[in-house]
Amino acid sequence: MQFHHHGYVSADPRVQPAAGTGIDRPAELPDEVDVLIVGSGPAGMLLAAQMAQFPGVTTRLIEKRDGRLPLGQADGIQPRSVETFQAFGFAERIVAEAYNIAWMNFWGPDPADPSRIVRTARTEDYALKISEFPHLIVNQARVLDYFAEAAALAPGRIVPDYGVEFLGLTVDGAGDRPVAVRVRDASGERTIRAAYVVGCDGARSRVREAIGRTHVGESAAHAWGVMDVLVETDFPDWRTKCAINAEAGNILHIPREGGYLSRMYIDLGEVAADDDHRVRQTPIEEIVRRANAILHPYSIDVKQVAWHSVYEVGHRVTDRFDDDPEHPHIFLAGDACHTHSAKAGQGMNVSMQDGFNLGWKLGHVLTGLAPDSLLTTYSAERQPVAQQLIDFDKEWSSLMARKPEDITDPNDLATYYLATAEFPSGFMTQYAPSAIVGDAAHQDLAAGFPVGKRFHSVEVTRVSDGNPVHLGHHARADGRWRVYAFADAAPGSPALQAWGVWMASPESPVRRHTPDGADLDAVFDVKVVFPRPFEEVDFFATPPIFRPRSGALGLTDWEKVYAGRPSAWVSADIFAEREISDAGAVIVVRPDQYVAHVLPLTATDELAAFFAGALATPAAASV
Amino acid sequence: MQFHHHGYVSADPRVQPAAGTGIDRPAELPDEVDVLIVGSGPAGMLLAAQMAQFPGVTTRLIEKRDGRLPLGQADGIQPRSVETFQAFGFAERIVAEAYNIAWMNFWGPDPADPSRIVRTARTEDYALKISEFPHLIVNQARVLDYFAEAAALAPGRIVPDYGVEFLGLTVDGAGDRPVAVRVRDASGERTIRAAYVVGCDGARSRVREAIGRTHVGESAAHAWGVMDVLVETDFPDWRTKCAINAEAGNILHIPREGGYLSRMYIDLGEVAADDDHRVRQTPIEEIVRRANAILHPYSIDVKQVAWHSVYEVGHRVTDRFDDDPEHPHIFLAGDACHTHSAKAGQGMNVSMQDGFNLGWKLGHVLTGLAPDSLLTTYSAERQPVAQQLIDFDKEWSSLMARKPEDITDPNDLATYYLATAEFPSGFMTQYAPSAIVGDAAHQDLAAGFPVGKRFHSVEVTRVSDGNPVHLGHHARADGRWRVYAFADAAPGSPALQAWGVWMASPESPVRRHTPDGADLDAVFDVKVVFPRPFEEVDFFATPPIFRPRSGALGLTDWEKVYAGRPSAWVSADIFAEREISDAGAVIVVRPDQYVAHVLPLTATDELAAFFAGALATPAAASV
Repeated sequence: MQFHHHGYVSADPRVQPAAGTGIDRPAELPDEVDVLIVGSGPAGMLLAAQMAQFPGVTTRLIEKRDGRLPLGQADGIQPRSVETFQAFGFAERIVAEAYNIAWMNFWGPDPADPSRIVRTARTEDYALKISEFPHLIVNQARVLDYFAEAAALAPGRIVPDYGVEFLGLTVDGAGDRPVAVRVRDASGERTIRAAYVVGCDGARSRVREAIGRTHVGESAAHAWGVMDVLVETDFPDWRTKCAINAEAGNILHIPREGGYLSRMYIDLGEVAADDDHRVRQTPIEEIVRRANAILHPYSIDVKQVAWHSVYEVGHRVTDRFDDDPEHPHIFLAGDACHTHSAKAGQGMNVSMQDGFNLGWKLGHVLTGLAPDSLLTTYSAERQPVAQQLIDFDKEWSSLMARKPEDITDPNDLATYYLATAEFPSGFMTQYAPSAIVGDAAHQDLAAGFPVGKRFHSVEVTRVSDGNPVHLGHHARADGRWRVYAFADAAPGSPALQAWGVWMASPESPVRRHTPDGADLDAVFDVKVVFPRPFEEVDFFATPPIFRPRSGALGLTDWEKVYAGRPSAWVSADIFAEREISDAGAVIVVRPDQYVAHVLPLTATDELAAFFAGALATPAAASV
Repeated sequence: MQFHHHGYVSADPRVQPAAGTGIDRPAELPDEVDVLIVGSGPAGMLLAAQMAQFPGVTTRLIEKRDGRLPLGQADGIQPRSVETFQAFGFAERIVAEAYNIAWMNFWGPDPADPSRIVRTARTEDYALKISEFPHLIVNQARVLDYFAEAAALAPGRIVPDYGVEFLGLTVDGAGDRPVAVRVRDASGERTIRAAYVVGCDGARSRVREAIGRTHVGESAAHAWGVMDVLVETDFPDWRTKCAINAEAGNILHIPREGGYLSRMYIDLGEVAADDDHRVRQTPIEEIVRRANAILHPYSIDVKQVAWHSVYEVGHRVTDRFDDDPEHPHIFLAGDACHTHSAKAGQGMNVSMQDGFNLGWKLGHVLTGLAPDSLLTTYSAERQPVAQQLIDFDKEWSSLMARKPEDITDPNDLATYYLATAEFPSGFMTQYAPSAIVGDAAHQDLAAGFPVGKRFHSVEVTRVSDGNPVHLGHHARADGRWRVYAFADAAPGSPALQAWGVWMASPESPVRRHTPDGADLDAVFDVKVVFPRPFEEVDFFATPPIFRPRSGALGLTDWEKVYAGRPSAWVSADIFAEREISDAGAVIVVRPDQYVAHVLPLTATDELAAFFAGALATPAAASV
């Protein structure tokens, strides 16, 4: 956490100074906005927190409900989401509060008496094997609380406008704010003009309806009851995540934060074609009864039902996530464009990545940093991810819903679970080449940083103070591009030195795309990692691009120079773990943490060309 | 973090339900209180946070200043203090915000040109070698903010009464509130009656003066300038803690949180006997000039002075920390009873432990859990710690203030630093036998848990969910005693079973000292650790004392049964690391985390006798 560089900060450093539209932000929803977010779910709230880092942009979030979400909804948090929380500054707090999944156990019929369940396998959770962050369970309401705090404490000081209902919109193409949005609040109906509207308004999205996009998918065939309950029980895995396949049906059992509560997804069986959603009327008593039948010989005595619901599995995805392939002004995110069963623990996570993907793009376009065409990449990148999710989720749900007699190897659910760990962790997303994702021509220079996938952090040593730090954790959700130069040798190496000098020259993206008068690191956060133990790196021998002065006092930033070989406090070798070439490499990382390019240190022209496509030239922005 | 056991919690679980005096707590300072804390420094604020866990007690904290501390003061945080923050629920947040000390470097004159300094040694910081928590640097103001939050969110809902000045007190021995305290607030002078008063009012304590205690110590002989500054510099260790011994003088250099700021303690030399504190008028320009002379050939260009001061080293300790050896009603804590040089980074830390030592004792006595005599242990335990601190600090300060020609081995400062690591980490404190510390007759059953020293946590596996957790971190600053049964074998072992049955019997301290109607774990948090991997421990085969039901819904607590042998997520073996006997052991830990007793599983009579001395019998309390 860096602060004090604009002068001494006495109070909570998480409170960033208000700026731009965050200064004296009006409590009332104004008549004209740049970005209007509809809905305060995970996609919308993350987007608000991200837009609050662009205080030059007027962003408002409207929500029909009168206040925060109190209960229910999603609760599974993938490691990718915890990485994202880290970028927004609250990972350590939510980890302390959440349930950490260490194991997934599997239960099946006892061969000696198939009416009774027995534990058939214990499986270590995948998360910590492929990320430095855990796999968590925590109430969606708390995730939203933390994003709300991040939005409120960021320079744009965004707080949701509760009690405002979206009624409809038209795009009439007039001027900077071509969208007319009809809303209803306590005082009646009114029209708000916006440059862009983002529909984060859930599965029955009225924004989606307004732009005529279709939610494509199968009709539901299987129903599940879900309940958050406090119980007395003799079931020994009450506090362990488990999948229970009994003769009497199936349960996905998810312990919750706080040490007592658990969530159960209880199989309610096939839904008849003529059911007409009658299954949704299943009373809680019947859900509990089924749970007890499945758990036999164990049982639960429910002391409190915190929340319950019945849903039919529906896998649906919208054909496009925007209103126009060339000049989009309306976007869809989260359940508004993809819905699926809750049991693979995907929904909230994928929705948040929608918001993370879109936020910086809106910020860059609206501040003049990037061309409008950047916005076409949102649907192009996120729609295939949603489709992939649906495919995975179908496979997973049908596995979960099998009858015992269909299971030939009792361990195959466990095997499938581990083999596909990258997906439920949130790490399988790989964006295709575009204006903001390079080709993989030089992938061999850094095989462990696949182009298009999220930047996978490794612990390194910060040279200025010898502290062990995760290289990727320095990247906050501040809308900046990251450029990591992995050096070929210690400071003074000709290749690194030449690259560093070029990066400070008029031809470099830093100089071409950083607005006049802005700090040198306002758009690009440029770091270097040396293939040396930290004691062998002389901080002041590095090119000045890695030691920029910024802020009102023009102070040197001491946190851009790293050592990548093991030293006293760090056992990892980032060069070995990420297979960095001896010749070094340049890794370009997007503001949403995805690897955008891998290039040789010598490929300065290609680096310049890449950013000429991704950003506006010359910089027209004030950030 | 455990919650939901009184029913579902939707919002921040760190906000505990208000209770007792915390419900409708009056904003105005009342005429009668149980505990009056004078001063809002580290001792006073920790004490407020602790007393807020005893909502049956009316506690108020008065502070002359109009609001929170904005600047300056102490900044060094020992691992023992971070452990304490963990108990109060904010360790992960302050760690994320603070500067972590990984190294301490040493600089001395260059033998080739003694006018220039060179780095002579790098020393890994001691903290992580002897604690799971780091050694931090963070502004005292932030530490106070976090304790203020803990106090405000705890059941007692304590917030400081700012703008109230302590004028004097008399103990007239009348009734339950024998202390008459004169204070002045905005409306004038008034008298408040209190049962107990705690003077946390700093080095010039008026509470100390009021009870006629003397601050004993040497007159000052050495002066230091201290400044928190933002600079431009070519000194490569600006972000590393270091001790600089130059021909031109000495600096202790401490990087601060946020990545830019550092604090420098600059030697201003011996103070003449007739100086009459004129040295305190040394201007900041002179302090900066001296710093630059010492740093030669490096230099600093100061861009902003956040805070500066000049002080003369004064080692002083008060003869007693209370007003009466037998029936104390007035206590002193923090700088009010011990002052010393700031350079060993001790002051704030020792002061906080004063508060931690006293808080639960006041809570137990005032709620009827413990006899009044418990309060005599405060001065008996803390005064020797302060004396030990003074002795260490003198030695350390004189080492730091040596001239280069006095240093025969350039590494001896580094050697001394590491050899004495236990002290600056805050772990050397060992309380002597008393009513609340047993003798060491059975110490050999658990050599790694020395009686009288703080309980040193180890990672274990929680049986109910297979999660790796630090055994000691489950202990929060909630005023409860902890009893850890280290089993001799898996559940079912006769010794453990017999102990567990006895602990639920009428003869056990649990039954004798827990008030009627209170939860079974209201006073004692009883846990078990098995010498087995967690997969081999059957939760429901453990004695019921380890599975108590509590809260409004009578829910089973799943977090009292642990496995101490290595398993998938835990490499530590607590039995090996803490040298637990094969016969098992019972470890009793005080509410302030100090080991109070080590006993065999068979020594139930001794366990009962120990608590008969530490607690009131029969329980007279309502907690």
